Amino acid sequence: MRTVFWEDHQLKMIDQRVLPARFEIVSFRDHRSAAEAIRNMTVRGAPAIGAAAAFGLALAGFESASSSTSELLADLRAAAALLKSARPTAVNLAWAVERVMRVACSVGGSADEMRVAILAEAQKIADEDVEINKRMAAHGATLIDDGDTVIHHCNTGALATVDWGTALGVIRTAHEQGKRVHVLVDETRPRLQGARLTAWELEQYGIPYEIISDNMSGYFLRAGEAQKVFFGADRVASNGDVANKIGTYMLSLAAHDNGVPAYAVVPTSTIDLSLAHGGLIPIEERDPAEVLALQFQNEPVAPKNARARNPAFDVTPNRLVSAIVTENGIVRPPYEVNLRAAVTRE
Amino acid sequence: MRTVFWEDHQLKMIDQRVLPARFEIVSFRDHRSAAEAIRNMTVRGAPAIGAAAAFGLALAGFESASSSTSELLADLRAAAALLKSARPTAVNLAWAVERVMRVACSVGGSADEMRVAILAEAQKIADEDVEINKRMAAHGATLIDDGDTVIHHCNTGALATVDWGTALGVIRTAHEQGKRVHVLVDETRPRLQGARLTAWELEQYGIPYEIISDNMSGYFLRAGEAQKVFFGADRVASNGDVANKIGTYMLSLAAHDNGVPAYAVVPTSTIDLSLAHGGLIPIEERDPAEVLALQFQNEPVAPKNARARNPAFDVTPNRLVSAIVTENGIVRPPYEVNLRAAVTRE
Repeated sequence: MRTVFWEDHQLKMIDQRVLPARFEIVSFRDHRSAAEAIRNMTVRGAPAIGAAAAFGLALAGFESASSSTSELLADLRAAAALLKSARPTAVNLAWAVERVMRVACSVGGSADEMRVAILAEAQKIADEDVEINKRMAAHGATLIDDGDTVIHHCNTGALATVDWGTALGVIRTAHEQGKRVHVLVDETRPRLQGARLTAWELEQYGIPYEIISDNMSGYFLRAGEAQKVFFGADRVASNGDVANKIGTYMLSLAAHDNGVPAYAVVPTSTIDLSLAHGGLIPIEERDPAEVLALQFQNEPVAPKNARARNPAFDVTPNRLVSAIVTENGIVRPPYEVNLRAAVTRE
Repeated sequence: MRTVFWEDHQLKMIDQRVLPARFEIVSFRDHRSAAEAIRNMTVRGAPAIGAAAAFGLALAGFESASSSTSELLADLRAAAALLKSARPTAVNLAWAVERVMRVACSVGGSADEMRVAILAEAQKIADEDVEINKRMAAHGATLIDDGDTVIHHCNTGALATVDWGTALGVIRTAHEQGKRVHVLVDETRPRLQGARLTAWELEQYGIPYEIISDNMSGYFLRAGEAQKVFFGADRVASNGDVANKIGTYMLSLAAHDNGVPAYAVVPTSTIDLSLAHGGLIPIEERDPAEVLALQFQNEPVAPKNARARNPAFDVTPNRLVSAIVTENGIVRPPYEVNLRAAVTRE
């Protein structure tokens, strides 16, 4: 099944906040609640929030009572702005919303025809995501050797996309090809997407894994216990700097220090050619309560009134990224030239 | 008050497993329960477990019914072996036990005189620890400038020692000297000694801090938000390789990548001149349940039956350690020569 889908005139999504304790599907009938679901991380993962926002715009179309296309477009523009502002770092969100808006603007027909075209484009984004992920996975699986132990950060599986996944999709495809792959799963503080979501997915796929805390990956890399590092990305600048879940920079640095390759796996929709380097990528800083909302042995982990910081992403400089796997192939340095070629290749 | 002390013929310690939720003193009347308290981390921190083991040996002396010194010595040797085996990485444990055993062996008198001498030596180790920490802190505080933000890993405060602390003692002394210091507190997965213990200590001292997850330190270092990195150590090899709480290697690597100095603060009893390099330091791997024993938003963080790994320490190579602060001064490379000089200087 899909993480994000359209059914009975509603946007439906797996609630990623309650896994692995409970598997729940939540439904949305208006774009405001869809935007809130992106903000509060009911849905997360750059490709998944792109698809969710596209369907959110379809909801906005049906919400608008207007029979004039210009009034409908005005309502859609307001909805698009709200959806795009839900989270700042992943470029897929803006990419998907703008793609749907371009279709809306180009429809020469009635308001209802515009609504239908918007939903069709959202559905196309969702369908393409699955197909693109499988192409990425086929390219990326060539990087995995039989017997490899791979360190994986955050969640980049079916849950982070519409289906199949990016970095975890690569691992899944290698596994299905019969390669023996063992995964060291970074738990990925503060929201623990690795321990909660990636471990849950690996259980479904029958891929062997062990959860580690994020600060342990350096130990296993130094010990020679891991041969590859894989992660997704929320935005890649034109020079190959990679914004991804907090901790990716330190993981990539440890991989580099030990001569272990580190690979980002991203659809070309995640590559932002408009940005010269990663320092220009906006980094979301979330509620510090997320860092403190933890119990250890049934006790709160921090003193009452403790303060915290919570940057949700970091930027890994291109010198630490061995290759970037896209649906159009494996891109290696020099990234300035080769990423542009990969994005424009169809 | 002290973290580890002798009172009413008992070894008493602050229970570090239940802070910050509860402040409890636990008492021990026999060396076996003292060894178990070291193993289960009721007491932790290299200097604190050294003092606890020394008092544990005093308990073993009083437990032994023997009036013959040779029989008492045999009982003490068995107790010493048990205490030393409680945790493998911190050399202070073996150092303290061996120091007390040397005194026991050299006492020329009755079994009761031996018991008294053992307790006196344990008390001396505890008293010296406080004095040594204050000397380290005075040296180390010269490395902190007014207005610095310092990243600190694990807990190295009064709780990790008999009193005052090692790396956190440096920060505390700088604060008492009137320097404005802000601390970014690594929460320190998996047992969260930073969020639970260091934050609690900083609250007591009135030193401003913010808790971060371990994987965030690279972000703050890249952003130029931290000027120094401080940590303690469980064992330092003769070449300056530092075994310390898991995560220290990745933190030091990120500091190095950004030109930020990283300092280890250790009493000379933590320096093991018998080891040529850090690869020879035994690294404890603890129960994976410690990694999984976490609730996030009141839900378990990992699937049922999830597997995990739990190495408790890592080794930071000497090239990433800017200086090692001891009670005998600040030691800089070349460590092979300068550490030996610092250890033998009195």
